[in-house]
Amino acid sequence: MLDLAKHLYPIPRSLTGEGINLSFKIFQAIHPEFKTLSFATGAEVFDWVIPPVWNVKNAYIEHESGQRFCEFSVNNLHLVGYSEPVDTVIDKEGLLKFLHSRNDLPDAIPYVTSYYSRRWGFCISHRQLLDLPEGKYRCFVDSSFAAGSLNLIEAILPGESTEEVFFSSYLCHPSMANNELSGPVLLSAILTHLKQMNNRRYTYRFVLLPETIGSIAYLSRRLDILKGSVVAGFNLSCVGDERRYTHLLSRKGNSLADQALSVALLGRQNVVTKSFAHRGSDERQYNSPGIDLPVCGFSRSKYGDYPEYHTSLDNFDVVTEIGLHQSFEVMKDIVDAFELGLFPITKVLCEPQLGKRGLYRDLSECVASSTDERLVDDLSIRMDALVYSDGETNLFALAKAAACSLRKILSEVQLLCDHGLMESSGKPFLN
Amino acid sequence: MLDLAKHLYPIPRSLTGEGINLSFKIFQAIHPEFKTLSFATGAEVFDWVIPPVWNVKNAYIEHESGQRFCEFSVNNLHLVGYSEPVDTVIDKEGLLKFLHSRNDLPDAIPYVTSYYSRRWGFCISHRQLLDLPEGKYRCFVDSSFAAGSLNLIEAILPGESTEEVFFSSYLCHPSMANNELSGPVLLSAILTHLKQMNNRRYTYRFVLLPETIGSIAYLSRRLDILKGSVVAGFNLSCVGDERRYTHLLSRKGNSLADQALSVALLGRQNVVTKSFAHRGSDERQYNSPGIDLPVCGFSRSKYGDYPEYHTSLDNFDVVTEIGLHQSFEVMKDIVDAFELGLFPITKVLCEPQLGKRGLYRDLSECVASSTDERLVDDLSIRMDALVYSDGETNLFALAKAAACSLRKILSEVQLLCDHGLMESSGKPFLN
Amino acid sequence: MLDLAKHLYPIPRSLTGEGINLSFKIFQAIHPEFKTLSFATGAEVFDWVIPPVWNVKNAYIEHESGQRFCEFSVNNLHLVGYSEPVDTVIDKEGLLKFLHSRNDLPDAIPYVTSYYSRRWGFCISHRQLLDLPEGKYRCFVDSSFAAGSLNLIEAILPGESTEEVFFSSYLCHPSMANNELSGPVLLSAILTHLKQMNNRRYTYRFVLLPETIGSIAYLSRRLDILKGSVVAGFNLSCVGDERRYTHLLSRKGNSLADQALSVALLGRQNVVTKSFAHRGSDERQYNSPGIDLPVCGFSRSKYGDYPEYHTSLDNFDVVTEIGLHQSFEVMKDIVDAFELGLFPITKVLCEPQLGKRGLYRDLSECVASSTDERLVDDLSIRMDALVYSDGETNLFALAKAAACSLRKILSEVQLLCDHGLMESSGKPFLN
Repeated sequence: MLDLAKHLYPIPRSLTGEGINLSFKIFQAIHPEFKTLSFATGAEVFDWVIPPVWNVKNAYIEHESGQRFCEFSVNNLHLVGYSEPVDTVIDKEGLLKFLHSRNDLPDAIPYVTSYYSRRWGFCISHRQLLDLPEGKYRCFVDSSFAAGSLNLIEAILPGESTEEVFFSSYLCHPSMANNELSGPVLLSAILTHLKQMNNRRYTYRFVLLPETIGSIAYLSRRLDILKGSVVAGFNLSCVGDERRYTHLLSRKGNSLADQALSVALLGRQNVVTKSFAHRGSDERQYNSPGIDLPVCGFSRSKYGDYPEYHTSLDNFDVVTEIGLHQSFEVMKDIVDAFELGLFPITKVLCEPQLGKRGLYRDLSECVASSTDERLVDDLSIRMDALVYSDGETNLFALAKAAACSLRKILSEVQLLCDHGLMESSGKPFLN
Repeated sequence: MLDLAKHLYPIPRSLTGEGINLSFKIFQAIHPEFKTLSFATGAEVFDWVIPPVWNVKNAYIEHESGQRFCEFSVNNLHLVGYSEPVDTVIDKEGLLKFLHSRNDLPDAIPYVTSYYSRRWGFCISHRQLLDLPEGKYRCFVDSSFAAGSLNLIEAILPGESTEEVFFSSYLCHPSMANNELSGPVLLSAILTHLKQMNNRRYTYRFVLLPETIGSIAYLSRRLDILKGSVVAGFNLSCVGDERRYTHLLSRKGNSLADQALSVALLGRQNVVTKSFAHRGSDERQYNSPGIDLPVCGFSRSKYGDYPEYHTSLDNFDVVTEIGLHQSFEVMKDIVDAFELGLFPITKVLCEPQLGKRGLYRDLSECVASSTDERLVDDLSIRMDALVYSDGETNLFALAKAAACSLRKILSEVQLLCDHGLMESSGKPFLN
Repeated sequence: MLDLAKHLYPIPRSLTGEGINLSFKIFQAIHPEFKTLSFATGAEVFDWVIPPVWNVKNAYIEHESGQRFCEFSVNNLHLVGYSEPVDTVIDKEGLLKFLHSRNDLPDAIPYVTSYYSRRWGFCISHRQLLDLPEGKYRCFVDSSFAAGSLNLIEAILPGESTEEVFFSSYLCHPSMANNELSGPVLLSAILTHLKQMNNRRYTYRFVLLPETIGSIAYLSRRLDILKGSVVAGFNLSCVGDERRYTHLLSRKGNSLADQALSVALLGRQNVVTKSFAHRGSDERQYNSPGIDLPVCGFSRSKYGDYPEYHTSLDNFDVVTEIGLHQSFEVMKDIVDAFELGLFPITKVLCEPQLGKRGLYRDLSECVASSTDERLVDDLSIRMDALVYSDGETNLFALAKAAACSLRKILSEVQLLCDHGLMESSGKPFLN
């Protein structure tokens, strides 16, 4: 995952244009299942209009001494996203109105966009801003707006059921690692994991798109299908650091996706649950009234919650292989739970006699406990798996009841299924 | 409101008789909508019998020296309510059995009644009681019990819907300000506010009555109508001081009235929520089994919760114009929410593009927060209003979700309706 | 109860055999209503097989010096339950592998069984173990396994309704007092209490059985009947000490039995509520998926929660007449609530006029409280009983709402029924 992210890092992406299209192609090379969906510029998608295609050939500021600053070719964050073309000479005072910097992070180039209001501007580290010499500056942006299309890619892995688990991430951000190359590379890893299965209980749908306008466009085309099939969805964003885990609740807060994620995070360090009021990525669209998809957000350090957010400091010091892999494990546990069958059912009435199967101690030598806490061990988890599997209690609730990790309950349920004591079952959720 | 309360203050009211009837007439002069409902003395209302009409011409205690105490004409609290006529001479020791005082409040004349058990008695400040000279006393009560009627007044302001919001307060207390002239004058102010509207979504019903027997009599006549129309009701009692706000929950605790009041009090200082176990006024009747109206109680310092309660100290040191006005604002926010339409619906799918309407910043320059608290500002409230307005979430829940006051959510929803992004809706509760 | 427990104490019980059968006969002598249900050894009951009948004539360890240890005739805990016959001579080192002791409780003989795995062994106090002389030992167990039957006893007290309240306890433990002679003797006392009633609203069912295999066998025969009739059930275990009260929640945690027990314990000292995860007795079977009976567990110091548990120290220093009687009072309050009628209904609309019935003070002289706590007294409980009795609120919820004991609400409801203001009602729970 880290290699792929590093490969994608330098590409100058935006909502549209060559950078994001090239990035999509890289994912399509790995997963031919990804098909492109296009939306013509100027087309209406719900309340929005698809913006023109924006491309940049070059952009910089040149001091009268010939010294250049904010070169787009050096770091694509230097240019405000969707800047209009300009070639003008102004003095330093005039220039400052077009510059964005962060005095709280003097070495960071901030990430700024102006998609729907025409302007131009440059982003610069505060330290460099303070060092700008007096004099005249040529501001040069060789950008273009053109008719064409806004694109996104979608992959579907069919399963026995037409009910779907949905994964979404976005790829419109230029050179930043956690927000947002981590999401797409994690999504790709989940796709790889599922492709390795011979058959699948559920159908899985994956989309990579430009944030906000992309998910709105996507929903304008797929809403009916999604409403009839998605049982749980996850918006993956900022999933590559090692600092914390964030569960951003869906609007209603108690969807199957919420249950899944909250339990998949049980037992992990530094887990934060945030209400939907803290939303900020495409879960905003997926959960909006009339859309109402059961989608929650999964992040490590959520957008807006880590200092390097939306600056050039959001790089591979923030995103690590370990961080990405831990995030993958969380999602893997969830899809493995779906694939095991969410509603295991105990097949014997009363407790089964585990002893004759070698699954229980055969000598009863009970000792009083000195505490009111109960001991959680393999045997207690096994007994809990049996007693709570009434066909109404799903694997997520089961892990909670047994006070163990989702991974652990999966292995115990599998063991009991192997002994014929339980049956895995994936009863339908919709209609 | 304060002037009206002061005007009403000296009138010697009780369940029946000239004082309460005169008080009703004062309200009817302000609001001709108020009609009188009468119940003949001796009539049965549910488990009760309408008591005889009680009037007092004069009452006092006269010491053999000629010095008079407990003169009804000086303060009508001096006479135990519904005292029977008496003219007898007894010594001081005998007198003391007929006197009520409060040694914990030595300057207060307590308020005592004996509506359904014939007796007579006087109320006196403890300080005065201790100073009573030895000797003979003439106890004189020139009161009368007569056939006639117990009255109450009722006003209905019709609206588009026959569903009703109901306000009740009581007017049987003699010279006490918070309990209970504050309730009737607040009720009158709400009535005035609603009359100023050209048309109304809902119907509003207002009653002023003698406490307990009045609401029981009223329910005996109006129960069927009320059960078929009241969607929320408020018993107004002790609403004139500035010390705290009290929400007395309805019996079930989660009625629409409870939602409304709890949210209308959000953000105010010194809010106390009390369970229905703390009931004590007419909400007892409105919530009793088989009656089951969705009525909660609104108070500032609730009856029984402030030291001056049921004494002559409950005067205009306790009740202030500011206190009454703050209470009015709470009720005004609630009726304005009903009138705006409780269930706003967002009319666009996905987030609307607020930028093109000047309702959003057009430059995206996000900065990480150093805290996990989210910032609540105009824009967050606007976005919350849009995303939570799914037609199932009422304005009260909306204010809670947006973490703002009811007043603020009303103005944001109005703004979004004005821009055509939302539609206010008042879907019916009862069918 | 204590005398009966002491009478039963020395009998050497196990799952099967003469000891438990004799014990059953003692209960049948007190309650001829108890009928025997038999299950042939070798028969399948759900996932289990009825074990052979085990009897012991004699068992001991004899040192080469002639000194005997672990004599079964002295204390039946010395022999591991279901030990196979043996007569062998081994040295001390070999012997130690067959001995069980508790170094944390050096004076206790532990209780150990091996029902389903053939072995033999002895239990010994750790102090005695450390003192065993070197040398050869003859290990002698004169036990037998035979075809026959596993037995249990069941009593049914019919009532007007076929809906049942169910009590279960177990009798397979040898000489231990709290676990488990306390449960059977409490069950017997409840039976006696109910037999003294002339007629009963509900049917009551009582079973005494060997733990686990007994309840599984019983369910294999009675499941359909129980599912169609049991509205609340209680597994009685370890109910004879004075240390605490334990409510072990049913699997779903909110059954009628749970409501009943939690409220019956209100106001008592040292009440502990434990989730079903802490289960360990026959409630495991009654609550297992597909069985799903509404059974919770009632204990004082629950099995596993007191140091003397499963040792020879679980004797009449632990179990006392006071402890047993307090447990009886808890269960008596519950059955009396069922018999009074769980759903009282107030028969008048609005508050009744209690004053004319002598049930209310006739002089109204209210005084402000200096605290926000409400005063709970006879009158507040009476008013609460009236206002919350809407036919949907059962006596358990009523006691909670009135903040009083179950016993107190029973007497207030009875009083109000006697005055014709309420009607007791036992509306059906099932279908």
